Amino acid sequence: MALDLTLSHHLSSETKNRTPNPMKEIWRLAQSTPGIINMANGDPHHSLYPISEIAFRVPSISQDDPVNAWRKGESITQTLTSYKDEPSAVSLRSALQYGSGAGLPEVRAALEQLMTVMHPSPSENHFVTLSLGNADAVTKCFRLLGEPGDAFLAEEFSFPGMTNAPLAHKVRWVPVKLDKAGMIPEDMERILREWDENKRGRRPHVLYTIPCGQNPTGSTLPSERRRKIYEIACRWDLIIVEDDPYYFLQYDKPPIRTEDVEKDGFAKTWARNLAPSFLSLDTEGRVMRIDSFSKIIAPGMRLGWITSNPLFASHLENLIDSSTQHPHGLGQAFIAEMLAGKDSWQIDGFARWVKSLCDEYQQRRDFLARLFEAELGNSGYANVEIPEAGMFLWIRINIEKHPRYRKDQAGKSNSRALTEELFNHVREAGVMMMPGYVFAIVDAEENGSGPNAIDERSNYFRTTFVGIEETMEKGMAIFGSAVREFFAS
Amino acid sequence: MALDLTLSHHLSSETKNRTPNPMKEIWRLAQSTPGIINMANGDPHHSLYPISEIAFRVPSISQDDPVNAWRKGESITQTLTSYKDEPSAVSLRSALQYGSGAGLPEVRAALEQLMTVMHPSPSENHFVTLSLGNADAVTKCFRLLGEPGDAFLAEEFSFPGMTNAPLAHKVRWVPVKLDKAGMIPEDMERILREWDENKRGRRPHVLYTIPCGQNPTGSTLPSERRRKIYEIACRWDLIIVEDDPYYFLQYDKPPIRTEDVEKDGFAKTWARNLAPSFLSLDTEGRVMRIDSFSKIIAPGMRLGWITSNPLFASHLENLIDSSTQHPHGLGQAFIAEMLAGKDSWQIDGFARWVKSLCDEYQQRRDFLARLFEAELGNSGYANVEIPEAGMFLWIRINIEKHPRYRKDQAGKSNSRALTEELFNHVREAGVMMMPGYVFAIVDAEENGSGPNAIDERSNYFRTTFVGIEETMEKGMAIFGSAVREFFAS
Repeated sequence: MALDLTLSHHLSSETKNRTPNPMKEIWRLAQSTPGIINMANGDPHHSLYPISEIAFRVPSISQDDPVNAWRKGESITQTLTSYKDEPSAVSLRSALQYGSGAGLPEVRAALEQLMTVMHPSPSENHFVTLSLGNADAVTKCFRLLGEPGDAFLAEEFSFPGMTNAPLAHKVRWVPVKLDKAGMIPEDMERILREWDENKRGRRPHVLYTIPCGQNPTGSTLPSERRRKIYEIACRWDLIIVEDDPYYFLQYDKPPIRTEDVEKDGFAKTWARNLAPSFLSLDTEGRVMRIDSFSKIIAPGMRLGWITSNPLFASHLENLIDSSTQHPHGLGQAFIAEMLAGKDSWQIDGFARWVKSLCDEYQQRRDFLARLFEAELGNSGYANVEIPEAGMFLWIRINIEKHPRYRKDQAGKSNSRALTEELFNHVREAGVMMMPGYVFAIVDAEENGSGPNAIDERSNYFRTTFVGIEETMEKGMAIFGSAVREFFAS
Repeated sequence: MALDLTLSHHLSSETKNRTPNPMKEIWRLAQSTPGIINMANGDPHHSLYPISEIAFRVPSISQDDPVNAWRKGESITQTLTSYKDEPSAVSLRSALQYGSGAGLPEVRAALEQLMTVMHPSPSENHFVTLSLGNADAVTKCFRLLGEPGDAFLAEEFSFPGMTNAPLAHKVRWVPVKLDKAGMIPEDMERILREWDENKRGRRPHVLYTIPCGQNPTGSTLPSERRRKIYEIACRWDLIIVEDDPYYFLQYDKPPIRTEDVEKDGFAKTWARNLAPSFLSLDTEGRVMRIDSFSKIIAPGMRLGWITSNPLFASHLENLIDSSTQHPHGLGQAFIAEMLAGKDSWQIDGFARWVKSLCDEYQQRRDFLARLFEAELGNSGYANVEIPEAGMFLWIRINIEKHPRYRKDQAGKSNSRALTEELFNHVREAGVMMMPGYVFAIVDAEENGSGPNAIDERSNYFRTTFVGIEETMEKGMAIFGSAVREFFAS
């Protein structure tokens, strides 16, 4: 890739003002001078760490459907162990020491290999920087790019944990309309084209998107839309923050053929079935792609990674050095052992586990969709699209059929009030689902009012199929009764 | 404590603008409603985490001097294990799930118990919030309190990894003079008294201090100075950010008497020997105390904790929810098992380990000081104060004795240039030590020039005694020769 260093105008003043920690510079000098005696840093000697080994008991992936065997307690297990004084994928001597902000070299190398297999990219110039999971990664990207007063684009329903964060440093959101297939490229282009910088300030230069199993709507962008959106981003000079925690959970894909696996390995064969990421389309270095282990290993891992151009990666590392420091060694030791340890899962085994998890979630999605159909399918009160990825059903409440539904003369309805009423009714009946309005990105210019306001189309509930069958059965039964009662009230 | 909510004027606009994540509110509502069926959140079910146990091999603390036995490889070991499906101090079902930003309740409870033993405080109203180590904690406190344009007080030599961080969001530093016993209260008071808000903007409202084994100078504030500084902070309405990673490494303390241990336990008996923290003097809720496991367990743990008044704790949690999220479960599981597990170290065992580590470092300090004396003690070229805490010797180079030392008519010398020359000479000879000027807080009004400029007293090297004896022997021999050569050049 011919790295376009003019992308530096996307960095916030705070980012440009941030100077490298002068001690880290000397620390790096010491690390890179062979044989030097380092008495500069207060780095406790490894002989004094009171942990000599960490052993993780995990399922063996030699089985056909490892997730199914594991959750039934019928799995063969294996142990991934990191040692302080014996060979390991990453020695605890490194993992428990201070390290580089971007992560340990062994862990970054393993993740770069995974990225090469899963997201063959037009650029050879993408760097992996470890994160503490997607919340940490996304908010760091927003900090990197967001100037007070900036407006960022996002899907009109999005994940408020993330869209809430940069509001405190005065980044505003501009919603892009969604349909069943996710963000509508033409609406994105319309916003950029109609943007009057004299009235509204700087034109949006960042798009935040969740392209697979979008949170909360569950939509997955088709390849053609991704190409259009990327092309618009190039034309209007946008950075795309691709937040993709559900990438590995894409459903209804063609079967994986043994002969392809024998030829190319499991991970590469599987990856061909999956939607192409924005990263894999990124000829210009405009994509900051964000991956996480939270949904596929465990949320408490608090580990993920950002793939970006080297300019952004270097500023990310400065930000890390000036805030959280590098991710914890315990998780890095686990990841290194899992992806690159001797006799461990390795990348293909990791892909086998995740694909098996994906099959499990596909079954749960179908189970919950069947429960929904049985409860409310013929009622006319609600309907649902079956998502191709992720963890959520996005249930539309047909609120306009409610006996107390009203519109005022300006065309504004009581949809929001009725949806809140239903949320409280469902909660009091004993089930918690997320009401659609929690996710709504309010267009500042509409002030959330008027017939086109997002409140007019927030009559949704986000519910998850990640739970066990018993939870889903009980929960959907209560929800079904509550909805029927609500429409009779 | 009668919590002085007027302390809220210390919060930055960004902090005040930060609204809680609306989903976290609903998540908390779900957590606090007994028996509710939660289908709101995409929290992967614990049966799908591919880790069923994590076992940490650690030394037994039943031995008299556990650190000595451990580092020689002669230690009895024990295993601290967290399980997903069997009883543990913290179940992996919780540790590997999403959690509260402040940390798991079990871990916070264990740390609150540790704080009650180590820092009996005049306030019952101090809350523990977990951090990712002191860098994360300190920079979060700066973010919480620092408004662009603010001036914060710090020791005139301080840890640039931390003082560098808030510069990017336009917080300036004002240096307080140091002597052998640390920050000089009278100089702190002078700055506040002479501060002209018309000329210099808002008077400093935050003091950042490293009270034990100060980094880099090694000084430890005597109790009397701590009381004076706290009293000045109350009078001038300052918040004290007490960054205390070396608290547990205080040397030359009286022996611990068996009869006291039998009566009060080991930790409490030992704590009586240690300098009183600012927290333990904090009647007004002005102290944000920051502790870490980095120096006493391992840096790669990336875990620590902040103790503060509940108002600040609640804003810290909002900041955590909008950035890093809660700390990793792997470390939290370890800490819970270590401090509160059945047949584990428990708090007294932890204190025994850390006290033994402290004895080890005291020996290393003495070893390095002896090497220094042997190399340079009679040379007149350099001298050193023996620190009462921490990890560093702060070596003064008697630069005014150098044959090429000069002062100009304004009284400004070539001290800084000569110190840089010596740094490069030492490095080329094969040893890395940190030159004093790396730590200097430049007084913005002096622009770093003039006879009173900090460059005139930056003729120091910070070196560490945390390494092994061989490193220290080789390193100090090279340093000694390099200094002698330098003075002969």
